Amino acid sequence: MAETQVAVVGGGVIGLSVAWKAALAGYRVTVIDPSPGRGASWVAGGMLAPVAEAWPGEEAGLALGEESLRRWPAFAEALAADGGDPGLSTEGTLVVAFDRADADQLAVLAEYLASVGRAVDTVTGRRLRSIEPGVSGARSALLVPGDLAVDNRRLLRSLQAAALRRGVRFLDVEATAVEPGLVRTGSGDVRCDVAVLAAGAYSARLRPGLGVRPLKGEILRLRVRRGSLGPPRHTVRGFVEGRPIYLVPREDGELVLGATQYEAGFDETVTARGVRELLEGAERIFPGIAEYELVEMAAGLRAGSVDTLPYLGPLADGLLAATGHHRNGLLMAPVTADAIVAWLDGEKPPAEVEAADPARDGGH
Amino acid sequence: MAETQVAVVGGGVIGLSVAWKAALAGYRVTVIDPSPGRGASWVAGGMLAPVAEAWPGEEAGLALGEESLRRWPAFAEALAADGGDPGLSTEGTLVVAFDRADADQLAVLAEYLASVGRAVDTVTGRRLRSIEPGVSGARSALLVPGDLAVDNRRLLRSLQAAALRRGVRFLDVEATAVEPGLVRTGSGDVRCDVAVLAAGAYSARLRPGLGVRPLKGEILRLRVRRGSLGPPRHTVRGFVEGRPIYLVPREDGELVLGATQYEAGFDETVTARGVRELLEGAERIFPGIAEYELVEMAAGLRAGSVDTLPYLGPLADGLLAATGHHRNGLLMAPVTADAIVAWLDGEKPPAEVEAADPARDGGH
Repeated sequence: MAETQVAVVGGGVIGLSVAWKAALAGYRVTVIDPSPGRGASWVAGGMLAPVAEAWPGEEAGLALGEESLRRWPAFAEALAADGGDPGLSTEGTLVVAFDRADADQLAVLAEYLASVGRAVDTVTGRRLRSIEPGVSGARSALLVPGDLAVDNRRLLRSLQAAALRRGVRFLDVEATAVEPGLVRTGSGDVRCDVAVLAAGAYSARLRPGLGVRPLKGEILRLRVRRGSLGPPRHTVRGFVEGRPIYLVPREDGELVLGATQYEAGFDETVTARGVRELLEGAERIFPGIAEYELVEMAAGLRAGSVDTLPYLGPLADGLLAATGHHRNGLLMAPVTADAIVAWLDGEKPPAEVEAADPARDGGH
Repeated sequence: MAETQVAVVGGGVIGLSVAWKAALAGYRVTVIDPSPGRGASWVAGGMLAPVAEAWPGEEAGLALGEESLRRWPAFAEALAADGGDPGLSTEGTLVVAFDRADADQLAVLAEYLASVGRAVDTVTGRRLRSIEPGVSGARSALLVPGDLAVDNRRLLRSLQAAALRRGVRFLDVEATAVEPGLVRTGSGDVRCDVAVLAAGAYSARLRPGLGVRPLKGEILRLRVRRGSLGPPRHTVRGFVEGRPIYLVPREDGELVLGATQYEAGFDETVTARGVRELLEGAERIFPGIAEYELVEMAAGLRAGSVDTLPYLGPLADGLLAATGHHRNGLLMAPVTADAIVAWLDGEKPPAEVEAADPARDGGH
């Protein structure tokens, strides 16, 4: 039987961040995942946008997201030194509205953000055209300068490299159950002091009763072509026919379009409807992408939770949850990793994590 | 210097058909292509539909297409015995119209076909719903029972296998020029009795002055999913916002959507606009595909000609053209191969081939 101090089940952005940070803190760590660095994190757009994605009634999520956002620059800097540059972009998010209903929604968002003390910048007409000339026909827009974005695939590679460098071991097998101090796999059990459940959408399969379900999302990756309009500078987010669409530019001329959201069980097929809706929506926001090359289409399964907040913290002695991040796994990776290391150390985690207590909805 | 009797430049459906048939007729044949079995033929939908694609003023093309269609069943049977079943479907084509303009165009087509002696069957209402229940909201439709379809990828594999079996040699290099009795390549010249230029869109690069240009097309391959409506039985063809869209079902639950058509030079990138237009158009015709899995997107370059007719026949002593098939390479492969073998034998080719004389437009 294999032994380790900390067994992290799941090698997505959460599991890798936890493993790297725990190894930095001096723990012997093993990551258990048949294909680390893939999963939902691989399919993500890379928006780190708690403010642009906020909504009245979701104060706890906003606070947790903002706390993690504050930790992102130092997290990225430490990672760059240890494993490689994850491609953090600081251009901010532009949220655009096209019709009266969208504009009304944007006004609600702006008012709500002001009421909780977050300044956003309303942009219209000529100024909008000068900020993002490729965005066409928008009625109004909000500029959220503090939002970040990250190249999710570079991030995953950096985290894997940094974890390896810090002595994390990788066990490329599938876990079948997670118990306090024990992870069962198809090729034998792994005994540990603490097991960390970071298996995303698959978490409830490993720990039945946990309120995590798969939430399917599709993304497209496009590439600018010679002679076509360059990608937007900001992350651009908008609603088209009630569906949220975002465009996240990458440093290398790539543009990621996301993201559909379906309740479809453990189904990772890319559908005709999903691709059509993403392309239609993105063309409405940024017509120039019609001429872009469509490089890749992919689907992933987010770890949906009941109230969109993650499940973070002790499930039992020797068993910590770090899952259920809904649409926010990349954003919340730094605060999640710091909280898990605090629990391992027997210290108090960041205050904002309290709302993510796994016991809150009787979910375990 | 390598030597052969017949050097076929190009290993798409035309080159492979010519090579196989020439080898069957007793010639020593070499196919020169860096990746035989790919190119535009690999990206095609597989419609063999001269009647459904006919239009007033294109009588010569209709006659040549119909002559080739008549040869298809025997061609497929011989191929099945020699290299494998190419997956010929005999269900026919259903051409559908959605608005008044489409319906008017369909009426013109029906009248034209009647005037040249081809019977087609007008279908409306309940009968249409019973023939293709998944086709929704069509105003009228034409059923063309004689049209065929083929699985283009199975066809290419079968042709390669049959050619190999008949002793055809494959030289996986790129030709740089084709002359009477000589093919120049990056790795040396190939001397031959007769060179056959079957290089599709690249033909004019090898033989400057020939009226062939690249005509870009994009296709999508979808797959039915459990719980979604089964694919149509017929090949279904329609116009959506003036653009032709076809859906070609395969035996194995796959559905091919085609095809965009652009003048874009030697550009084989799949564009956002192309994919969006195909999906929108196909969903309009057959709404059930929204739930299908989108398996593949691909672009290819057809060999466009000036008048949509191919260039078939002698360009000089020791040099035959078999190129410029426009949208009809798969359809016209049998008659093209038979005509080339007739010329090799010093015999008269099928009469319908006369209209495809390469000298007709001063193109060489």
